[in-house]
Amino acid sequence: MDNQQQRKEGYEGRALSLVTKSGASVGDDVILDTESGRLEGVLMPGGTRSGHSILVIKLGNGYNVGISVNRVKNITLKQKGKEPTFVPPPKPSSTTGLPKVTIIGTGGTIASRIDYRTGGVKPALSAEELYLLVPELSGIADITTRAVFNIYSENLTPKHWTILSEEVSKEVNNGADGVVIAHGTDTMHYTSAALSFALESPPVPVVLVGSQRSSDRPSSDSAINMIGAVSFAANAPFSGVFVIMRSGLGDDTLSVHSGVRVRKMHTSRRDAFQTINGKPVGIIKGTDFTIQGDLKPRVARSKEFRAKSAFEQNVALVKVYPGMGPSMLDGLVDSGVRGVVLEGTGLGHVPRALLPSIQRAIDKGVVVAMTSQCINGAVRMTVYDTGRDLLSIGVLPLGDMLSEVALAKLSWLLGQGYNNEKVVSMMTQNLRGEMADRRAL
Amino acid sequence: MDNQQQRKEGYEGRALSLVTKSGASVGDDVILDTESGRLEGVLMPGGTRSGHSILVIKLGNGYNVGISVNRVKNITLKQKGKEPTFVPPPKPSSTTGLPKVTIIGTGGTIASRIDYRTGGVKPALSAEELYLLVPELSGIADITTRAVFNIYSENLTPKHWTILSEEVSKEVNNGADGVVIAHGTDTMHYTSAALSFALESPPVPVVLVGSQRSSDRPSSDSAINMIGAVSFAANAPFSGVFVIMRSGLGDDTLSVHSGVRVRKMHTSRRDAFQTINGKPVGIIKGTDFTIQGDLKPRVARSKEFRAKSAFEQNVALVKVYPGMGPSMLDGLVDSGVRGVVLEGTGLGHVPRALLPSIQRAIDKGVVVAMTSQCINGAVRMTVYDTGRDLLSIGVLPLGDMLSEVALAKLSWLLGQGYNNEKVVSMMTQNLRGEMADRRAL
Repeated sequence: MDNQQQRKEGYEGRALSLVTKSGASVGDDVILDTESGRLEGVLMPGGTRSGHSILVIKLGNGYNVGISVNRVKNITLKQKGKEPTFVPPPKPSSTTGLPKVTIIGTGGTIASRIDYRTGGVKPALSAEELYLLVPELSGIADITTRAVFNIYSENLTPKHWTILSEEVSKEVNNGADGVVIAHGTDTMHYTSAALSFALESPPVPVVLVGSQRSSDRPSSDSAINMIGAVSFAANAPFSGVFVIMRSGLGDDTLSVHSGVRVRKMHTSRRDAFQTINGKPVGIIKGTDFTIQGDLKPRVARSKEFRAKSAFEQNVALVKVYPGMGPSMLDGLVDSGVRGVVLEGTGLGHVPRALLPSIQRAIDKGVVVAMTSQCINGAVRMTVYDTGRDLLSIGVLPLGDMLSEVALAKLSWLLGQGYNNEKVVSMMTQNLRGEMADRRAL
Repeated sequence: MDNQQQRKEGYEGRALSLVTKSGASVGDDVILDTESGRLEGVLMPGGTRSGHSILVIKLGNGYNVGISVNRVKNITLKQKGKEPTFVPPPKPSSTTGLPKVTIIGTGGTIASRIDYRTGGVKPALSAEELYLLVPELSGIADITTRAVFNIYSENLTPKHWTILSEEVSKEVNNGADGVVIAHGTDTMHYTSAALSFALESPPVPVVLVGSQRSSDRPSSDSAINMIGAVSFAANAPFSGVFVIMRSGLGDDTLSVHSGVRVRKMHTSRRDAFQTINGKPVGIIKGTDFTIQGDLKPRVARSKEFRAKSAFEQNVALVKVYPGMGPSMLDGLVDSGVRGVVLEGTGLGHVPRALLPSIQRAIDKGVVVAMTSQCINGAVRMTVYDTGRDLLSIGVLPLGDMLSEVALAKLSWLLGQGYNNEKVVSMMTQNLRGEMADRRAL
């Protein structure tokens, strides 16, 4: 073994001992067994992020994946590298042979144009236009574009969630290596949650992406967000439903959020989307991707993938407030609502005056569940008697699930035709990472 | 002038030149003309906070106030100090002569006890007990305690806001130098907003304080929060309505939040309360207070202080969501609601399907106003046609006002007996610092 074959740059502590134990050096083909599945590639020089040692490998497609040493169970040396130095993968002369990514257009700022008639901005989308707006994409993926609808995201309903999840399945079955959905940011986190439930274990990544500034403005985040989303959809060795948007204002870093943990937390900033009660599952910088959370590996496509795409339209989200009277809840129940997500105060409380209306709703078969308007943290309804009284009449405690996610989940469970008992049971179970295990809280 | 009289420790840059220009040294009596009014005291060694030079003076009551040099317009030397060194003010043997502070009890965790019957926590408050629980208070203020009610904060209504604001006025007129309200944290930010409107230019500080952990638990924040609140109410040279709670988890720093800018942002953490769209107006560490935002000086009490204490009970807060139908709004309007605060998506949008219900509400004389469920940032309804359509039917844009603050403000304006035109006009004006000037957005 010559010197070049013993390179272990950037590794120390447990990372170094794992690498050493495996007999691998930088430049060798290795297999990493991680909490997010098996990763194969060429071992790259290591690094640190927020004080944690990061193991880095370059996948066959040229995409670098970094992972905290804590998440790595084992390293296996597959083959000694012949080349101790690395060159970026060659730029293709055409998109032939690149991973296939479908971009689905829905309308929203990422494709909007100034409306000169009024001075405002309105969506003028064709997904084709998206592709033309960001020519860099031709070096990343063999892209198909499809406009499914062209409406502001505030006008999307559970019916659109159904259409979108079916369109995604179609694209997956047609051989897409990843799907990107260009979405208005107003309700992108509601849709990402809905798709997370409708698309169980999708074989490829499904990425929602938007823009907080329209592409006509010099500060637009359209291009960088779209490039990050397409690159992740094409190359990342993970599957699931994600939101990709800017991490912060200081640099060009993008965050990869779990579709069931993310919320729009600012009206206008480009880093408006934040993972709540945790960190984004990953961070993208250029072609480097660093894993920060739980991710599932891509799944082999042995058979047709099918979305469970039905959603119940008649569900409601109700934020409670001091002095709230019964008329809102009563109005909902009288209109035939089938499920209500309450956004209670603190650990999951409501004014005592609402109890009769809640009792009446539950008596009529409405599923009523509790989240917190604090956004961060978790409901805990066993601490105070208000909470215990709500539990005793059948209000479901949803732990640290976001209210917007709870709404999408309840709409989906009721849409699946399960009986109330099954809806109640599944509502309080973690299905897609949308809530922490109760013991962890 | 001897050497000791030329001390300027900790001052540099503009702070040093202001001090030098005034002819003052550390230990001298000085007058600071600031954006938050005039401060008189002994000049103390300076410091920095987050990179800003801080001028520090010790007030006659021993309380140290730090202020960023940017907020200081002028320094005047009042009298050269005789003592170049400083000793803490002597501990009084009794509370006689200390500032008078009234602690008003309402119920809530800050005074709760374990309910051994059920294992949960329930309020078992007398304000007297509060005083006994925190004996340190006897060195800070001459305290009167009053229990106004004893209920969980989720059960407070606009009627309780009326009672509280009248009780505060009474205490102020009876000579209190400051008022502290011990409050359950679930809805403390709604009450602080309500009192901010009902108590216009109170002559003394009115501080709401709570606890995220009951006083039986070793991690309780009851004592530190109460000590900070009473100390600020007794000594701070400012007036207004504030919330005082822990700043972070790392140390014993407390944040002083404007009553109209604060929100409970975590279900259980001790630093749950956060100032939104800005920094807390001040930071307390021990007996040191650092000004970070706009504060008004205490007002001379020339005449009786009167609360404008009436609130309209029939107002509502409605969070919109994808697929939302008209039944909630219609139910509210049919029940005689007089004002509705919408929590729209993004810059202030709602599903287009809601427009007829909103139009109907406005036609019936209901005041309808828009905030954003993003929490951070501001509504801007002129950007997209959804927003413009809402403006054109009369929905009021509330800038960066929090939805909870908007609810309290609308309840107060409607309670004051103003006609709709005046309510509409005042709702969109900044009255108490609850919204930024439109030009600043």
